[in-house]
Amino acid sequence: MPINILFAALPKRWTEYEAPLRAALDKHGLDYILETDLPPQDVDYIVYAPNSAVQDFTPYTRLKAVLNIWAGVEAIVGNPTLKVPLTRMVDSEGLTRGMVEWVTGHVLRHHLGMDRHIVNPDHDWDPAIPPLAPERPVAILGFGALGQACARSLQGLGFAVCGWSRSAKAIEGLTCDHGQDGLKRVLTHAGIVVLLLPDTPETENTLNAQTLSWLPKGAFVINPGRGPLIDDDALIAALDRGQIAHATLDVFRTEPLPKGHPFWSHPKITVTPHIAADTRPASAAQVLAENIRRSEADEALLYTVDRSAGY
Amino acid sequence: MPINILFAALPKRWTEYEAPLRAALDKHGLDYILETDLPPQDVDYIVYAPNSAVQDFTPYTRLKAVLNIWAGVEAIVGNPTLKVPLTRMVDSEGLTRGMVEWVTGHVLRHHLGMDRHIVNPDHDWDPAIPPLAPERPVAILGFGALGQACARSLQGLGFAVCGWSRSAKAIEGLTCDHGQDGLKRVLTHAGIVVLLLPDTPETENTLNAQTLSWLPKGAFVINPGRGPLIDDDALIAALDRGQIAHATLDVFRTEPLPKGHPFWSHPKITVTPHIAADTRPASAAQVLAENIRRSEADEALLYTVDRSAGY
Repeated sequence: MPINILFAALPKRWTEYEAPLRAALDKHGLDYILETDLPPQDVDYIVYAPNSAVQDFTPYTRLKAVLNIWAGVEAIVGNPTLKVPLTRMVDSEGLTRGMVEWVTGHVLRHHLGMDRHIVNPDHDWDPAIPPLAPERPVAILGFGALGQACARSLQGLGFAVCGWSRSAKAIEGLTCDHGQDGLKRVLTHAGIVVLLLPDTPETENTLNAQTLSWLPKGAFVINPGRGPLIDDDALIAALDRGQIAHATLDVFRTEPLPKGHPFWSHPKITVTPHIAADTRPASAAQVLAENIRRSEADEALLYTVDRSAGY
Repeated sequence: MPINILFAALPKRWTEYEAPLRAALDKHGLDYILETDLPPQDVDYIVYAPNSAVQDFTPYTRLKAVLNIWAGVEAIVGNPTLKVPLTRMVDSEGLTRGMVEWVTGHVLRHHLGMDRHIVNPDHDWDPAIPPLAPERPVAILGFGALGQACARSLQGLGFAVCGWSRSAKAIEGLTCDHGQDGLKRVLTHAGIVVLLLPDTPETENTLNAQTLSWLPKGAFVINPGRGPLIDDDALIAALDRGQIAHATLDVFRTEPLPKGHPFWSHPKITVTPHIAADTRPASAAQVLAENIRRSEADEALLYTVDRSAGY
């Protein structure tokens, strides 16, 4: 008898998820029916987003598990009609890959000086040759899993990468400095600085008027980490006086970045809308299919939510 | 006694070359004097560009070799006053690295859809997430040393890379198709196509109305190879009807690309001024210093010009 899987999320998600989810389920050789509409009493699993129409789980009498496609579960974890296991999405492959692609792409963009070719209204033919990657030191502040993955990607392209973290770390094949003295050493040499620190009281305004002044004149700032890592006013001042050549920012203190915020119209700031790292259907589908396979094989589910703790 | 090295090229080159050349000479532990002005009878080596003021080599009575910083030697090879060995610049490290950086950067730019964030006059916050690299097939037409180096870089980032060459090639760790049938197979699946073919009668207009129509709708074209590889009118027609989403072109049938050429003003074309791969001072300085070291050690010079053949 086929496994009946109900996809209960917005229609846009169905468009994105249907093909990769079928592919991932097929890979496990599962016999299944996957639809956006099934009689509730026939449903075995719900692939779920908390903003779907399904809010009352009572009619789903033979339901085995609800598999959330969001990382966040706060809008469903307290639902009293939900009696079966609930999993949240931990798409570490998509998140890490996405971050590495976004960071590598924007480092190369600034390194190569692409913008003056992308926007070139005077049609200038100016064959200035940029330096090569080994002559471009890149500092990565925050040297956890994401920072290290970005460092390896950039090092593979030849960039002179140095990581920085608050406490000392020894990481095979990578250079990493630490502490306040180390921060000054790393920034003093950085042509491009990438922020991948967590958002904590200690990391707030890591880039401020003083630390920005440590960077070589004309350095680039890239922030895919957290909005509060940068003192916004200090950044604008450093851009205005040419200390920083350009900043590319993916995260902000308020998101979406409010219309009228000075970042939007600043000629030396590029805003990207919090897209550097996110759940991707292709890799998320692998996680969903793996959990259905596990459930059918009576193995423990991945990323089960502890509903008493709320996450 | 120090080796006397005259730097005879335009002042702009001296600015670029002095520091890397001194560093490269120092690395070999050579005792030298490097200047832009030295008494001709004292000069041992001339680091040379054919557009320098030095055109009569007669006064350089103890000259051992002329080391050209250009790849091209046609403006000096016939000089009858030059009696000593002449070397041309083969900066394979700079050329390959530069090409890999430019190709990887522009592939990531199109893959991530950067342009809509770089130019966003309406300040739209539109967090559309691009697919990940494994879902973006990249075709590299021309699978010589440069094509393979780009393929390895892109494959390292996770892209689904397939090379193509006119004749069959088996290359460890890379996928490569060949021949006219293979071209259709490769283009039919390519989200991004990179042109790195040589300029020969057989490769002219490799991308033409027919082959462009084989690409999936919305594909990207990147040409760092040679201008004549693309039928210009067919490309513009394919862009205008949306078959091709965007083309980034570094090489053209006439360079500099003439003012008024339709490529300049086409909203779906990015022109870069033949910068994808060029000699770089840092790596070229290594080649120059290595040749001075070899000459002083009575070893054979690298890249000696055969003046009877003219290159």
